[in-house]
Amino acid sequence: MANITKKVSWSSRGDESGAAGEETPLLNGSEQSRPLRQMSSGSTVFQIGRLSTVDLEEEITTEEQDSVRGRPKEIPHNEKLLSLKFESLDYDNIENQLFLEEERRMSFMAFRCLEISRWVICGLIGFLTGLIACFIDIMVEQLAGLKYRLIKENIVKFTEAGGLSISLLLWAALNSFCVMFGAIIVAFIEPIAAGSGIPQIKCFLNGVKIPRVVRLKTLVVKVVGVIFSVVGGLAVGKEGPMIHSGAVLAAGVSQGRSTSLKKDFKIFEYFRRDTEKRDFVSAGAAAGVSAAFGAPVGGVLFSLEEGASFWNQMLTWRIFFASMISTFTLNFFLSIYDNKPGDLSNPGLINFGRFESEAMEYNLYEIPLFIAMGAIGGGLGAFFNFLNYWLTIFRIRYVHRPCLQVIEAMLVAAVNATVAFILIYFSTDCQPLGPDQSEEYPLQLFCADGEFNAMATTFFNTPEKSVRSLFHNPTGTYNSLTLGLFTVTYFFLACWTYGLAVSAGVFIPSLLIGAAWGRLCGILLASTTSTASMWADPGKYALIGAAAQLGGIVRMTLSLTVIMMEATGNVTYGLPIMLVLMTAKIVGDYFQEGLYDLHIKLGSVPFLHGEAPATSHWLTAREVMSSPVTCLNRIEKVGTIVDTLSNTSTNHNGFPVVVQVSGDDEPAKLCGLILRSQLIVLLKHKVFVELARSRLTQRKLQLKDFRDAYPRFPPIQSIHVSQDERECMMDLTEFMNPTPYTVPQDTSLPRVFKLFRALGLRHLVVVDDDNRVVGLVTRKDLARYHVGKHGLEELLLAQT
Amino acid sequence: MANITKKVSWSSRGDESGAAGEETPLLNGSEQSRPLRQMSSGSTVFQIGRLSTVDLEEEITTEEQDSVRGRPKEIPHNEKLLSLKFESLDYDNIENQLFLEEERRMSFMAFRCLEISRWVICGLIGFLTGLIACFIDIMVEQLAGLKYRLIKENIVKFTEAGGLSISLLLWAALNSFCVMFGAIIVAFIEPIAAGSGIPQIKCFLNGVKIPRVVRLKTLVVKVVGVIFSVVGGLAVGKEGPMIHSGAVLAAGVSQGRSTSLKKDFKIFEYFRRDTEKRDFVSAGAAAGVSAAFGAPVGGVLFSLEEGASFWNQMLTWRIFFASMISTFTLNFFLSIYDNKPGDLSNPGLINFGRFESEAMEYNLYEIPLFIAMGAIGGGLGAFFNFLNYWLTIFRIRYVHRPCLQVIEAMLVAAVNATVAFILIYFSTDCQPLGPDQSEEYPLQLFCADGEFNAMATTFFNTPEKSVRSLFHNPTGTYNSLTLGLFTVTYFFLACWTYGLAVSAGVFIPSLLIGAAWGRLCGILLASTTSTASMWADPGKYALIGAAAQLGGIVRMTLSLTVIMMEATGNVTYGLPIMLVLMTAKIVGDYFQEGLYDLHIKLGSVPFLHGEAPATSHWLTAREVMSSPVTCLNRIEKVGTIVDTLSNTSTNHNGFPVVVQVSGDDEPAKLCGLILRSQLIVLLKHKVFVELARSRLTQRKLQLKDFRDAYPRFPPIQSIHVSQDERECMMDLTEFMNPTPYTVPQDTSLPRVFKLFRALGLRHLVVVDDDNRVVGLVTRKDLARYHVGKHGLEELLLAQT
Repeated sequence: MANITKKVSWSSRGDESGAAGEETPLLNGSEQSRPLRQMSSGSTVFQIGRLSTVDLEEEITTEEQDSVRGRPKEIPHNEKLLSLKFESLDYDNIENQLFLEEERRMSFMAFRCLEISRWVICGLIGFLTGLIACFIDIMVEQLAGLKYRLIKENIVKFTEAGGLSISLLLWAALNSFCVMFGAIIVAFIEPIAAGSGIPQIKCFLNGVKIPRVVRLKTLVVKVVGVIFSVVGGLAVGKEGPMIHSGAVLAAGVSQGRSTSLKKDFKIFEYFRRDTEKRDFVSAGAAAGVSAAFGAPVGGVLFSLEEGASFWNQMLTWRIFFASMISTFTLNFFLSIYDNKPGDLSNPGLINFGRFESEAMEYNLYEIPLFIAMGAIGGGLGAFFNFLNYWLTIFRIRYVHRPCLQVIEAMLVAAVNATVAFILIYFSTDCQPLGPDQSEEYPLQLFCADGEFNAMATTFFNTPEKSVRSLFHNPTGTYNSLTLGLFTVTYFFLACWTYGLAVSAGVFIPSLLIGAAWGRLCGILLASTTSTASMWADPGKYALIGAAAQLGGIVRMTLSLTVIMMEATGNVTYGLPIMLVLMTAKIVGDYFQEGLYDLHIKLGSVPFLHGEAPATSHWLTAREVMSSPVTCLNRIEKVGTIVDTLSNTSTNHNGFPVVVQVSGDDEPAKLCGLILRSQLIVLLKHKVFVELARSRLTQRKLQLKDFRDAYPRFPPIQSIHVSQDERECMMDLTEFMNPTPYTVPQDTSLPRVFKLFRALGLRHLVVVDDDNRVVGLVTRKDLARYHVGKHGLEELLLAQT
Repeated sequence: MANITKKVSWSSRGDESGAAGEETPLLNGSEQSRPLRQMSSGSTVFQIGRLSTVDLEEEITTEEQDSVRGRPKEIPHNEKLLSLKFESLDYDNIENQLFLEEERRMSFMAFRCLEISRWVICGLIGFLTGLIACFIDIMVEQLAGLKYRLIKENIVKFTEAGGLSISLLLWAALNSFCVMFGAIIVAFIEPIAAGSGIPQIKCFLNGVKIPRVVRLKTLVVKVVGVIFSVVGGLAVGKEGPMIHSGAVLAAGVSQGRSTSLKKDFKIFEYFRRDTEKRDFVSAGAAAGVSAAFGAPVGGVLFSLEEGASFWNQMLTWRIFFASMISTFTLNFFLSIYDNKPGDLSNPGLINFGRFESEAMEYNLYEIPLFIAMGAIGGGLGAFFNFLNYWLTIFRIRYVHRPCLQVIEAMLVAAVNATVAFILIYFSTDCQPLGPDQSEEYPLQLFCADGEFNAMATTFFNTPEKSVRSLFHNPTGTYNSLTLGLFTVTYFFLACWTYGLAVSAGVFIPSLLIGAAWGRLCGILLASTTSTASMWADPGKYALIGAAAQLGGIVRMTLSLTVIMMEATGNVTYGLPIMLVLMTAKIVGDYFQEGLYDLHIKLGSVPFLHGEAPATSHWLTAREVMSSPVTCLNRIEKVGTIVDTLSNTSTNHNGFPVVVQVSGDDEPAKLCGLILRSQLIVLLKHKVFVELARSRLTQRKLQLKDFRDAYPRFPPIQSIHVSQDERECMMDLTEFMNPTPYTVPQDTSLPRVFKLFRALGLRHLVVVDDDNRVVGLVTRKDLARYHVGKHGLEELLLAQT
């Protein structure tokens, strides 16, 4: 999410959109302070006036202007802003005449075939996601093994020579090099690939168009980036990026073409619209979760929890299919890689190991303890988010150049290595090297022969393996001091790491922090009670701690419970994990939002939550709508359309289409809705009434023309319209959506919100008793209301 | 579902609603063939005419009349009818002035408290559902143990004396007695408690009001009934009824009162409306599944798959909470009952036992075999449904008297015992009695000492235990002949049993049939291949067979996969089970619908599926809407309202409210929507304008008055309105919903459908360009379109 926020900083500093920024610093302000530009044929464009002015909004306008004038160089608190630069996706089908004609032509068999294609695509998505997960896993393992061997040889050599500082240097240099490479490709090639990508996918599924988020380039950078960040020893996981990767794959596969590679397979053309694409992206995200955690059901629930608003049985079933195929593919190929073909015991990238029910029972009286741990997790999570929040603000202000970002990433890698080395140096936690050693990379270092340094092992292993060791290693493998020091160090390192310009996830570091302090809790409990046998297994507490910490940071609920259940392969722990996650969420929410929501807010994204704020019944559509609305006539002059689209001060995307009835004095009635993208295609193909009459157009415009242009519609500036053509007329009847959803002015905000969210709308027309357009509700009009500390608050809209 | 269909038969025979049936045999027909009744003040009731007549519908009218005239005594195929007697539930909030005022008065803290109450209620629902499951389990075990001891003693006594026929008689008599008791309470006290209740709950969640389905009496009859049917040795399970029980509990607990017991706790009054009640009933159904199968996630998915249309994150999380509490409660109390407190290994009523991953691996080449088994399951399931369908039709026609139903149930019980006895008598499948015998009730019968009769054991055990044995017993426990005979017999017995007037589920019989033929497949495969070791475990095939058979009968998909995964505690089998269920569904759907859908259809319930039929884009709101619509003025004469409500020929439930603008010649514009139930409360409290002016009313009508009357609003006949009062006026402004959702006439059916389903609407007003009412879309208008063999078909509407 760092890039979104970065953009905010750039544009405020006048680097990119300075000109636009000066002219129209804030939309609201501009609308009310200056008269609107006169169009060349202004009389045909209806500017339907605002019927009522709300006091609240005037106050805001003043505040906004103050903030812009008072501190033009300083960035206002971004989470109080809602950026106007984000466009929405259309999750409502545009049922215009072309579309209906096509649908009516289709036979029942054709719909069957479409349904089968959907299944095939979901299968493909699952398969490819599984393959990518497999690739990441194998590459990380190979490179990490290489690094380990290099360093170990070096340590062995120099421990005898006494020059351990050289080992440290080598270690730090190797890590920094890896991270540098990972950071360079992210910072210079595709900044949107930074982080886990989960906030971006959440936004996409919610209906916000995040530029470049589902492109092939993003996928490549993401995958290569995550390999190098993990090998570089950063406190990151390779699970989060899988979700983003699955989503990108889904967006690509479902369209049957790659715009980046300029390759069109001419298949799946029916799916080239936002509604269908979203469905597949949900499946991709689910497949990603499934491959990451071996949790197909958890993946489905993740997709539903984060994205979908309308429950569709067939869609869910397809998502589940993609998830299953994904985990199965990963499992199958990893079993071949491990030379145990057919052994399907690695369903995910992370494997928590099997918790045996008998060994891991819990008692009723332990539940309060678990809940207390949940509260600790919530508190620590909120602290983590709080630190990361300020760090992100700092980064937005000062670390926004790509080269600075690369340097920061390298610095983190070097510090990581140094801190680890210091801890190892002072650690005295030597453990015997058993024959059935679960650690893959034991380091003897300063320990006696036949022993290994527990601290070193924890740092040298991949975080996934450390989590597993903390869950399953027998009692006494770690001493309290090691765990305590490790928790504190790793907490700050992980916090610093999240938000760097590297592709990396926060799941595993969170689990690791939680597992460490959870195990510590278990050890301390065992030492305080006399009946030690009851508390014998600290692994149980490590699991609860991991859940609490992760829940405290990301605040996921249902899906996380199921993911944890599936990853541990144990249903018994469902109830405690659920209680812990619930407590962590309640406690955490009291202090601070979840990490993903925080970054979405910092990006000023107009994100719509599941329900309207509780106390928003006193607001009605009249108050929230944007007004005046630029309307178009059903048969409109080309010049007017071009001018309307070229108007950078408004930059509207949807235009109600109206018809003038009888006399000129009577206002026009709503008869449809047309989108900017549709108008652009019409202009590009010069679908003018005069041309149609003179038979100059060879063929009727078809749905295919719109699909070919999707999703990268050209800007209006690239379309040349001659002066003669400006005088032509365009007939929008066939292309507009003739039945847009409308609400009366008195509809309450929750009711508008429910309609908007349930149907995935982009524009909702507000009409009066006579079906005349009085306003338009868009995403930002709804997203700006939220419940703050002082009741209902309104975010400012900013043209960032 | 049998009772709904039964009703159809009664009314067609003129027992109940003969008079109404003669007067208005079919709504559509009556409207077009006769002039509408003249109201006493007809001029103020707007009968807005139908704008276009569709040819299709005229044809149907003719067909309908033919069918009624041609064979008045014969029942038409019920699945081609849609009954008009079912009312809908209001899952859209009625946001009238009263409601909005209340919401606006509420502080943020008040909303918090409401949220907390919701959680408390869900916890309670889970707890009570768990308790009920526990009660059923313990009672069944005690009574079955008693029965077993009685019969065993008897057999031991008479085997020596050679009079086995007396044993048979005793067995049959015992079973018949139990079943008789179970059938009597169902048939005579509460017929809606028959069957599993799943179709009814599906309908409720879908928005159809099934009378008496969530009453306390239903719950008591259901619970007692299921105990006696299971003990009576019928081929039934106790799992299905748990879902219904949970739903009833939820409906009761969430309302804070019991109308049957006339006890109002004055709590949770805010939740006394359909929207909130539905949410809790979802939670109850999920808790029921969770307790039945130990599958909390499966429960949530079941609720979502069957009921919810709008995905709400907080709601889902609450549902999950209820599920977790439910399985935990059951587990905890059963562990106490089993004298192993704290041992949480019985999460559900049925326990499939633990499948160890190592022993139960599958290979890639087995997947085609699994898919083939899925196809067999689908075919057998369709055959099962086909037989049951004709049986149900037969029952509707001839077995509709309660005493006949009881006799049929007793007959089934007796035949059950006889067939089992015959099979046991001719069975030669004697198995050694091992020391670690998993069978609880081994019967030696005609076997040598130290051995037991496998067939007898299969019949004597509860079906749950038999399923477990088929899954886990070592190779060679059953021989092929036993399994084959058992499958065939049990198949027909189970088919005959489903639909009897007893409270019983079809899950376990289906699983048992499937497990039997699945195990048979495993044995046959092992015998045909030389490398026997590969196919050594027939338990694996039993599991797949069970899934296939159950999937073939009920056609559940996602939730069933998760339920099977959770019940087996094994994630590895997720993919094969999913593939099997998918195949079973595809194959089964080719022949016949799922059992629950079939019974819903036989009940002529206007059930709305997830999506509109694929080829319905050529239909628009104009064609599907009901027209003319009875509208009311905003300030309406009491007499008119009473007459409108008393009009039994239309029996409308929602009335658009209109205002007359300027001249009388101009038609009226829509300004709101009011429900019959609201009007009745208004009439009851005599909220007349004249009374308000003369200060005769002590207080303003409040939301509480509506809530107190909910959900059993009195009929209009019970409200006395004097001749003077008829001349009074009523002001509906405050009570009507001022912002009903509307669509233009040209909106396509899928678009109308999506709006209707996503928002859980009951009435959708169709307006013209000037916002004048032209029609009303209700549930039956949408539910009657479905994809049949010859493309899109339309069901007939019948006043049954």
